[in-house]
Amino acid sequence: MVQYPLEVSAVITSALSGMIAARKKGLDLVGVYAIAFVNAFGGGTLRDVLLDRRPFFWVRYEGYAVLVLLLAALYVYGSRLLKPVKAPAYRVFALLDAFGLALFSISGTAFALEYRMPPFTASLLGVITGVVGGVLRDILLVQIPVVFRKTATLYATCAFVGCWVYLVLVLWQVDMAIATVAGFCTIVLLRMLALRYNLTLPTPREEE
Amino acid sequence: MVQYPLEVSAVITSALSGMIAARKKGLDLVGVYAIAFVNAFGGGTLRDVLLDRRPFFWVRYEGYAVLVLLLAALYVYGSRLLKPVKAPAYRVFALLDAFGLALFSISGTAFALEYRMPPFTASLLGVITGVVGGVLRDILLVQIPVVFRKTATLYATCAFVGCWVYLVLVLWQVDMAIATVAGFCTIVLLRMLALRYNLTLPTPREEE
Amino acid sequence: MVQYPLEVSAVITSALSGMIAARKKGLDLVGVYAIAFVNAFGGGTLRDVLLDRRPFFWVRYEGYAVLVLLLAALYVYGSRLLKPVKAPAYRVFALLDAFGLALFSISGTAFALEYRMPPFTASLLGVITGVVGGVLRDILLVQIPVVFRKTATLYATCAFVGCWVYLVLVLWQVDMAIATVAGFCTIVLLRMLALRYNLTLPTPREEE
Repeated sequence: MVQYPLEVSAVITSALSGMIAARKKGLDLVGVYAIAFVNAFGGGTLRDVLLDRRPFFWVRYEGYAVLVLLLAALYVYGSRLLKPVKAPAYRVFALLDAFGLALFSISGTAFALEYRMPPFTASLLGVITGVVGGVLRDILLVQIPVVFRKTATLYATCAFVGCWVYLVLVLWQVDMAIATVAGFCTIVLLRMLALRYNLTLPTPREEE
Repeated sequence: MVQYPLEVSAVITSALSGMIAARKKGLDLVGVYAIAFVNAFGGGTLRDVLLDRRPFFWVRYEGYAVLVLLLAALYVYGSRLLKPVKAPAYRVFALLDAFGLALFSISGTAFALEYRMPPFTASLLGVITGVVGGVLRDILLVQIPVVFRKTATLYATCAFVGCWVYLVLVLWQVDMAIATVAGFCTIVLLRMLALRYNLTLPTPREEE
Repeated sequence: MVQYPLEVSAVITSALSGMIAARKKGLDLVGVYAIAFVNAFGGGTLRDVLLDRRPFFWVRYEGYAVLVLLLAALYVYGSRLLKPVKAPAYRVFALLDAFGLALFSISGTAFALEYRMPPFTASLLGVITGVVGGVLRDILLVQIPVVFRKTATLYATCAFVGCWVYLVLVLWQVDMAIATVAGFCTIVLLRMLALRYNLTLPTPREEE
C-alpha cells in the first residue's frame, strides 16, 4: 500500500507546521505539543465529530500521538541538531505538505460518502479534514487563520477542486482507485502551481 | 407554515453578519465563506453535537450550504451590485436578525426539551443555538465576541428571557404553538427595544 | 465520599478563574458567565464529546450551571461584598485550583479507561479534562493560552505526570482507590512545588 508512508509524512508535516508556528510565538513544550497535535489531528477529529465516527485516527493508531510528542521534544530541545536539515528542506516540506493536504482531503470526502453525506457536504468535509488543523492552530496562537487571508496562496481552494474531481468521478461510477488518484493529483498539482506562481484568489474591487 | 421563510431569512442574515465582519478584516472568498458558514450554522451545530443529534441542519438541507457559498461569492465579487441595497437595508437587517435570533433560540430550546434536557440546560442550549454562531465568527476573526462586550446592546439576554417565557408556558402545559409564538415575540420585541433605546446590561461599580 | 466537596470546589475555583480573567477584559454579565461556564465545564465537555459520552456533567447535575450563574452575578454586581475575602484568599485559591486540576485530570483518565482507550490516549484525555477549560477561556478572551506560555509554572505537566502515576498503578493491578489517591496527590504536590519554586519547563537554547 502507498497510503501508509503518505499518512506518516502527512502527520509529520502538519505537526511540523504547528511546531514552527508555536515556537515563533515562544511557547514551551506543552504549547508546542498541543499546537502540533491540533495541527496534525484537528481536521480529522472535527470531521469525525461531525460524522459521529469513532474511534478517532489518533486513538486507533496511538503511535502517532506518541510520535508527535517525541517530535515536539526534539524540536524544542534539539533544534541545534535539526539545523542542517532545515534550509534545503523547504521545498521538500512544501511538497510533503501538499501530499498531506491531498491525502487528508480525499480521505475526508471518501469517509463522508461512506457515511451517506450528500456530495456538497462531502466536499466540505474533505476540505475541513485537510484545512481545519491549521485553522485551529491559528486560533490557539491568536492569529487570523492563514488559509482565510487574502495574501495566502491557494490552499483550501486546491482541496475543494480536488475533492470535486474525486466526487464527480465517483458519481460517474468510475473505478474508486482512479477517482482517488485523480483527485489526489489534482490537489498536489494545483497546490504546487499556486506556490510556484504565487496564485491567490482574485481580490475584489473595493474594501468596505 | 411560517417557519420556512423565517428560516431562510435567519440563515441569510446570520451569513451576512459573518460576511460583513470577514470583509472588514480583509479576508478572501475562502475566509468569507468559512466565516459566513460558521456564523449561520455554528450555533445549531454545537447544539446538535451537545445533544448528539444528527443529521445537522446544513446536512439535511444541503441547499443552505450552497446558498451561503453563492451569497459569499456575490458579496466578495459583486459588492458593487449590492451597493444600492445597503444603506436603507440596515433596519430591515436588524429586524431580520432579531427574527433569526428568536427562531434559532426557541427552536434550540424545543429540541433540547425533545431530548429530555432539564429546563435550565434547555434554556442554555436555546441561547447557544442563537448566539454561538456569532461567537465562533469572532473567535475566527481574533476579536472578543461582540455579545460578551459591556458596550453591546442586549442580545443573549433577550434570547435567554424569551427561552424562559417559552419554557414556563410549556411547563404549564400551555399549547405548544402559543408558547412558541410568545417566546418568539418576546425575543424580537426585547431585541428591538434594546436596539432602539440602546439597552445594555447594567455596568458594575468598579473594574479590577 | 470525599469526592463531592472536591467537585464543588473544583467547579467554583475554575469558574472563578474564568470570571477574574473575563472581568479584566471588561466583559458584561453574559461574557463573565460564558467564560466562567467554559472554564469550569469546557474540559470535561470536550472529553465527553471525544469519548461520545452522555449526559454531560453539567447536564446531569444541573445545579452546577445554576450555581455558576449565581456566582457570576455575585461577582459582577457584588464585588464590593467580596472584597474583604480576596486578599488572603490567594493561597487558598491556588490550593483549591490544584485540587480541581487533580480531580478533573484523574477522573478524566479513569473515564477514558472505562471507555477502553489505550493508555497514552487516556493520559491525554486526563490532561484535556484538567486543562482545556482554561484554554477555551483564553481563546474566548483572545489571548494565547496561559498553559502554553514559556513563563507559566508547570500545570499541564503536573497533570500529565499524575495521570501516568495513576495509569501505571492501574496497569499493575494496584487497588483502584490507591491508584486514584496516588495520582491525585502527585498532581497536587507537583503543582504546589511548581508554584512555590516557580518551576517552568526548561527553556530551549534559541528561538527561531
